[in-house]
Amino acid sequence: MKVDTVIVGAGTAGLSALREVRRYTDDFVLVNDGHWGTTCAAVGCMPSKTLIEAANACHRRHDFDEFGIRGAEAVRADIPAVLARVRKMRDGFVKGPEAVPEKLGERAISGRARLLGPGRLDVNGDQIEARAIILAPGSRPVLPGPWRAFGDRILTTDSLFEQVDLPRRIAVIGMGAIGVEIAQALARLGLDVAGFDAVAGLAGIDDNEVLAAFRPLIEAEIALHLGGPAELEDVGGAIRVTGAGGSFEADAVLAAVGRQPNIDDLGLDTLGVPLDDKGMPEIDPATLRVGDLPIFLIGDANGYRPLLHEAADEGHIAGRMAAPGATGTGLCRRTALSIVFSSPQVARVGPPLSELGATQIVSGSADFSKQARARIARTAAGVLRIHAERETGRLLAAEMCVPAAEHLAHLMSLAIEARMTVADMLAMPFYHPVLEEGLRGALRDVAKGVASAGGSDLSDCKAIGHDALD
Amino acid sequence: MKVDTVIVGAGTAGLSALREVRRYTDDFVLVNDGHWGTTCAAVGCMPSKTLIEAANACHRRHDFDEFGIRGAEAVRADIPAVLARVRKMRDGFVKGPEAVPEKLGERAISGRARLLGPGRLDVNGDQIEARAIILAPGSRPVLPGPWRAFGDRILTTDSLFEQVDLPRRIAVIGMGAIGVEIAQALARLGLDVAGFDAVAGLAGIDDNEVLAAFRPLIEAEIALHLGGPAELEDVGGAIRVTGAGGSFEADAVLAAVGRQPNIDDLGLDTLGVPLDDKGMPEIDPATLRVGDLPIFLIGDANGYRPLLHEAADEGHIAGRMAAPGATGTGLCRRTALSIVFSSPQVARVGPPLSELGATQIVSGSADFSKQARARIARTAAGVLRIHAERETGRLLAAEMCVPAAEHLAHLMSLAIEARMTVADMLAMPFYHPVLEEGLRGALRDVAKGVASAGGSDLSDCKAIGHDALD
Repeated sequence: MKVDTVIVGAGTAGLSALREVRRYTDDFVLVNDGHWGTTCAAVGCMPSKTLIEAANACHRRHDFDEFGIRGAEAVRADIPAVLARVRKMRDGFVKGPEAVPEKLGERAISGRARLLGPGRLDVNGDQIEARAIILAPGSRPVLPGPWRAFGDRILTTDSLFEQVDLPRRIAVIGMGAIGVEIAQALARLGLDVAGFDAVAGLAGIDDNEVLAAFRPLIEAEIALHLGGPAELEDVGGAIRVTGAGGSFEADAVLAAVGRQPNIDDLGLDTLGVPLDDKGMPEIDPATLRVGDLPIFLIGDANGYRPLLHEAADEGHIAGRMAAPGATGTGLCRRTALSIVFSSPQVARVGPPLSELGATQIVSGSADFSKQARARIARTAAGVLRIHAERETGRLLAAEMCVPAAEHLAHLMSLAIEARMTVADMLAMPFYHPVLEEGLRGALRDVAKGVASAGGSDLSDCKAIGHDALD
Repeated sequence: MKVDTVIVGAGTAGLSALREVRRYTDDFVLVNDGHWGTTCAAVGCMPSKTLIEAANACHRRHDFDEFGIRGAEAVRADIPAVLARVRKMRDGFVKGPEAVPEKLGERAISGRARLLGPGRLDVNGDQIEARAIILAPGSRPVLPGPWRAFGDRILTTDSLFEQVDLPRRIAVIGMGAIGVEIAQALARLGLDVAGFDAVAGLAGIDDNEVLAAFRPLIEAEIALHLGGPAELEDVGGAIRVTGAGGSFEADAVLAAVGRQPNIDDLGLDTLGVPLDDKGMPEIDPATLRVGDLPIFLIGDANGYRPLLHEAADEGHIAGRMAAPGATGTGLCRRTALSIVFSSPQVARVGPPLSELGATQIVSGSADFSKQARARIARTAAGVLRIHAERETGRLLAAEMCVPAAEHLAHLMSLAIEARMTVADMLAMPFYHPVLEEGLRGALRDVAKGVASAGGSDLSDCKAIGHDALD
């Protein structure tokens, strides 16, 4: 078979690429291995957010008495019912991608694709030649080999949401974004949860001041064993997990030690480009191109920014760069944004603090443990830090563990993407009482250290251009 | 007594002015009538948000079963306990302003100020002469005279939070921002609530499409009688309130028909400037100056934008413009922003749609009743509308009734304040799954109608300036 373009993978990146490819050709095939659908909808963002929503609703009962709400003593999570809703919601979210093969007809091929060289692939034993190849094979949870001996007592995000029920004691190994989200949710649903990680970090937080604020908040809900490798041992039906500072007997273990790109069997070694020790070629994030070839590696599979919105952008970029005659140096990537849906939420906008040159920046912070609106809601906790260029006040980055961080992080993202200064951002209205006032506190803190800071948020008024008040 | 500057009123506007006045003089007095403190902390934003928070927490029990949470049958609000927490929180929030008189010593005067003419005031029978006068006497709830006959069964926001308990049936007259917030909160706490308004509006919504989406959501929780004046009648201990479409027998009535500026007895008529039929002089919002006099009328008292953040800005502006030798045409006001803390929340950014010239604008909308993240949270409802200049795509205004509108409205405020276009805003990252993706849907809808819209959110990349992916 000979086609203009092959897309490998029908996840977020592949389907986003498909949209662009169709702008320039109908002569394409989409090859997908296994279930047609996105990681996000099937086993990622959507089921985890559904679990977290139920967990947070259930956890709220602990605030009821203080609010003046009585009768919550009998409130408890019915784990099978919670998981059933997760699957019900998920089944709705996966419907779109599941319908793709039918819509594409012969241009959709179920099977595993393997590169045979530039412009050539093997799919189900057939050879496909193509002018352009867009590779979006996705990623899968890492599961260390020895742990497989524990059979179905070892869960990953691929299997967790398929469980009809969960046992009482769960160890979560890996306290990155996914580990923290799920561990806290399971604890809030009434399970006994312990979290383990080889390093002394949580939720991918880079800024130590943010981590210092976040850790005790998580530790109040989950036993944490951070900073040493976790060892698993079978002890009479239970799994004893031993890590930094102690051990925990679990009925099941969730492995949340990361996801790995599905490139092992992709044939990248046939392309004649240098590969690193993990078999990964170097890729320009503005073009997603492998070397100078009309071959693109996008989405989770390139390990660059394994997030849905980035996968969608990468599909968009690759689909454009794959067009016949496409020129240019690619499309600029958006401001980096990551959000962890814990309580409080964790978010980072822009580069991590550790990658900012400390001498040129000025930082400001806001303590949300006393923030007025959050105190009203009994969610007051955490810290928000903002970093700007010392000379100009231009906003560079922010990291936070605060209530509604998902919203405050979008606000910071807009400001940073638009290359605003602290003063630009302080010119916006801040309503009262809102969590954004906490963010304003951090901005004002930054402003104190900016060389060019002025004395008022408001600009001088032109002689015309404002209304009379009548 | 002769001083450089007199400030009348120790609320948000007055205390904000005080901060600026102290930059240029110590020769001032602050005169305050009644309780020292802000409307916001004592009887406004803070107690109402505390009530709403408890009400929403209690209401959440109706979602428990769908989430898989059992045992909520006995959950109920203990009204005296809810109100006790409101007062406890409020007592914390009012502490700051209450400490002002002690800190200012002789420069704080308790009493009612009345202008005797430009540069002259009467306070407690003493005359004060001043170079500059900043008037921030605040506002009070409107209470129609005939309703006073019902005694303490007629509540306002001044008395509501002082109640030890509340009777079962409450009529709320006036379905503006405050009326809708309190009526919904009381209904969610288990009381029987009916809402009345002379006009067929809700929560100050201007855009009829937003109102059409909002009304059924409120009507599902509260009986509404909109579009006709409310008549009160004593019927054997109860108050029968009759309005559009029917009547309701109430044990108490909350009058929420607006707030009126405290200018009736201020002596503005002695200044020799024109007053309208309500006794209000014309005031330039950029200077807050009364005529050409060194006299400023700020905060709720001028009726321009009776909101805390605006009162703070007005104090700031007046304090700067009152300084000896101050020149210039004033300070530009921020983008208008209003938020109603109902469920879903209502918000408006920029001018109301009815004040935008319809021929020059393009509008986009997003239906939040199907928004994915909101469906997960069982909060999916409402609509968000964005308006931009047709020719340039510059964002002008937005109005919405959606979950977390308080956050989406701040995002829109930053974009509008910074004079961004739709394309500028679409360049920011939108995480997944978040409510901001709903807002992006409305932006994309706007972009379709913008003359200059392009095909990608992402900009062409410069040959340098992006990182290689390794």
